[in-house]
Amino acid sequence: MIGSFLKFIDWDTSTLEEQKNILKRPKNSMNLELKNKVSEIISDVRQNGDQALTNLALKYDGVNLSELKVTESEIENAFKNTSLEIIEALKVSIQNISKFHHLQKKEDLKVETTTGVLCEKKIYPIEKVGLYIPGGSAPLPSTLMMLAIPAMIAGCEKIVLITPPQKNGDVHPVVLAAAKILNIKNIFKSGGAQAIAALAYGTESIPKVDKIFGPGNAWVTECKMQVGFDPEGAAIDLPAGPSEVLVIADESANPIFVASDLLSQAEHDPSSQVVLVTTSKDLVKKVEQQIAIQLELNPRKAIAVEALQSSRAILTKDLKTALEVSNLYAPEHLIIQVEDLEYAKSKVKHAGSVFLGPWSPESVGDYSSGTNHVLPTYGFAKAFSGVSLDSFTKSISFQELTQEGLRYLGPSVEILAEAEGLYAHKQAVSLRLKQIKNEGLC
Amino acid sequence: MIGSFLKFIDWDTSTLEEQKNILKRPKNSMNLELKNKVSEIISDVRQNGDQALTNLALKYDGVNLSELKVTESEIENAFKNTSLEIIEALKVSIQNISKFHHLQKKEDLKVETTTGVLCEKKIYPIEKVGLYIPGGSAPLPSTLMMLAIPAMIAGCEKIVLITPPQKNGDVHPVVLAAAKILNIKNIFKSGGAQAIAALAYGTESIPKVDKIFGPGNAWVTECKMQVGFDPEGAAIDLPAGPSEVLVIADESANPIFVASDLLSQAEHDPSSQVVLVTTSKDLVKKVEQQIAIQLELNPRKAIAVEALQSSRAILTKDLKTALEVSNLYAPEHLIIQVEDLEYAKSKVKHAGSVFLGPWSPESVGDYSSGTNHVLPTYGFAKAFSGVSLDSFTKSISFQELTQEGLRYLGPSVEILAEAEGLYAHKQAVSLRLKQIKNEGLC
Repeated sequence: MIGSFLKFIDWDTSTLEEQKNILKRPKNSMNLELKNKVSEIISDVRQNGDQALTNLALKYDGVNLSELKVTESEIENAFKNTSLEIIEALKVSIQNISKFHHLQKKEDLKVETTTGVLCEKKIYPIEKVGLYIPGGSAPLPSTLMMLAIPAMIAGCEKIVLITPPQKNGDVHPVVLAAAKILNIKNIFKSGGAQAIAALAYGTESIPKVDKIFGPGNAWVTECKMQVGFDPEGAAIDLPAGPSEVLVIADESANPIFVASDLLSQAEHDPSSQVVLVTTSKDLVKKVEQQIAIQLELNPRKAIAVEALQSSRAILTKDLKTALEVSNLYAPEHLIIQVEDLEYAKSKVKHAGSVFLGPWSPESVGDYSSGTNHVLPTYGFAKAFSGVSLDSFTKSISFQELTQEGLRYLGPSVEILAEAEGLYAHKQAVSLRLKQIKNEGLC
Repeated sequence: MIGSFLKFIDWDTSTLEEQKNILKRPKNSMNLELKNKVSEIISDVRQNGDQALTNLALKYDGVNLSELKVTESEIENAFKNTSLEIIEALKVSIQNISKFHHLQKKEDLKVETTTGVLCEKKIYPIEKVGLYIPGGSAPLPSTLMMLAIPAMIAGCEKIVLITPPQKNGDVHPVVLAAAKILNIKNIFKSGGAQAIAALAYGTESIPKVDKIFGPGNAWVTECKMQVGFDPEGAAIDLPAGPSEVLVIADESANPIFVASDLLSQAEHDPSSQVVLVTTSKDLVKKVEQQIAIQLELNPRKAIAVEALQSSRAILTKDLKTALEVSNLYAPEHLIIQVEDLEYAKSKVKHAGSVFLGPWSPESVGDYSSGTNHVLPTYGFAKAFSGVSLDSFTKSISFQELTQEGLRYLGPSVEILAEAEGLYAHKQAVSLRLKQIKNEGLC
């Protein structure tokens, strides 16, 4: 029955105000209380270092940590205890992610813009990076691969991994197995805001990094935002809200597949949002039936059902409108299951990662297709890209002028500096031109 | 005399603590009071739109604005009243900046990571961008060129320029002349935090944008930080503090040039910082003498003298150490005037833009060499790049699997989804593989 799981709306008969409300994200859990608590955690970590991390692990996660750093033997044991099947699957992912990210390498740029004026833009790895790998309801070795592989390809000198331990004080073995395959050795046990604060400011054990990557819950996100613009803190990969998917489907779509894709997102987190945009009301009915069937078997049913509270099924008069709705929403994940795929693809303007056709479920992108799964959520796709090789690099520009170059370019610099009223800017050129003249060098 | 303008320090005989203090930036003017005031301005602009902008212009800048939008005839008049000499100089800059930024264009990436698994990374312009051009003590047509040219090359659909008017209510004519040459028509009069808030959230007159660019004073910077991570706000180009230069010079350097470069930075703003790092104590003496001479003629002497309060002259035992000091500081502008330029260049790790050799004053990069002058300040160069063509683009990844692709990749996705405990993620693959089997398609 329509409306049993997905909140149904007919787009074209809705008012502008209603349309705007339909596309609102679920209320972000960030609030003033959280802000203040995170701010206190940051102060605590900056003041008390490792001790703060140990105390907070006990207080918030009920975990008693004797050591923050994961030992080599912990890594070895975890690897040994991981099935060959999983190891092989990790390797398939690593291969594809490596291939896709290797191809993102860029050449330095070097050009003489004018005779005697050599300009360069050289690319550098970000020296020290921190990777936050969420634990919580699901351990995510996949996120480790998505972050560590581009960091290694970029040539980052120091890669620090931080991840919340399980109740028993151990890091989930599959995360460590993935780290072992990737040869990552700097691994620390800490989760939540305190882990981010440790990466941003450093502690006795945990090295301060230049940039922090990785998704997390509201605490992690809030802490990333607080340290991200602090000159003494660390840059961050992306602002983030809860994860989401938008599926565009027409009457040709298989409702079994559509339902499974919506549920893949819904099972992530109670705050996840799933949106179906379709030209077929009949499809909505069938998808609802399928959701009911597929939910029954899902051990994460409770999470999914809660997430479905803020779900949407939006009916549009045509595919063009469906794409417009999607661009307004700017989804993190966009799945397109329609007949005219080329047309639909050409109309995408804002999204994190797009899955085309019936055989491209979101989960292939989450693990193994090769694209990155750390993506802009919550509408940030309008201005942000997902994590890529670029996220682990920065560029520096260089310029070197010959005397001839300065003789040619200098006079126009003098004119503009004067127009801007910047006297010393002009003088820096004039005094050099005078010297060239005095030395009879021209 | 050493110490008359630059605070002198011998690096190698200083303690670690002293070294750390030497490289501290001048206290950032951002504080809680400013935070709250900016926050109030944002609320005001969101609630009262254009009216708030007009009121705030009167309150803070003493300017009575009848219209926020600059008219076409204002632009025409400004252009007519700008000297041919200036127009020609602007065109030289535009040519070089265009050349350097055109070459930064990137191809979309398309690759079959595995048989039947097609992955793409496509580049898109950011749709709507807002360019903030400071007025204040110096009108900056150069900043307009640095932002508008890459925005146009990237293909941004909407380019909105906002800049504080002068006391008489007009925008500085050279800024409008540059806009005219660049064919920018959406120009609004507003400055400070309120201008940034208007771009981030939109008003009746001013369109909301997806990303905001441009330097500004502490109010502008604070406001950019407040809107930058707000999902309803707009992304920002860079976090920023006061501008700065670090000059590395050895005994071969010309003290006249070094002094002029330090003063070019010092005249910007009382909060600017200038740092000389040198292997020659004798050079420090000569530079101090030159500063005294060159300051006398400078109409912006008062600003420069104030900025020099937080200046440094750091003596190091060798060039290698000088480069290490520079990398610790991570300067926005780095000027290198030493004999062994190639060695010095090879050791640069953290900087915004680098000026090599005696004939490359910072002012050529500020205006005309072709590189961008909107750069990471305040140590942000450790993780951030200056503005480039990339700043005006984002990428979206796409993946499309054939049945064969899913048959190959699906099983390893199922294994990893199961390892992460994500049931529906696995099902999204399993249900599709079942369908392929049922249809006898494999």
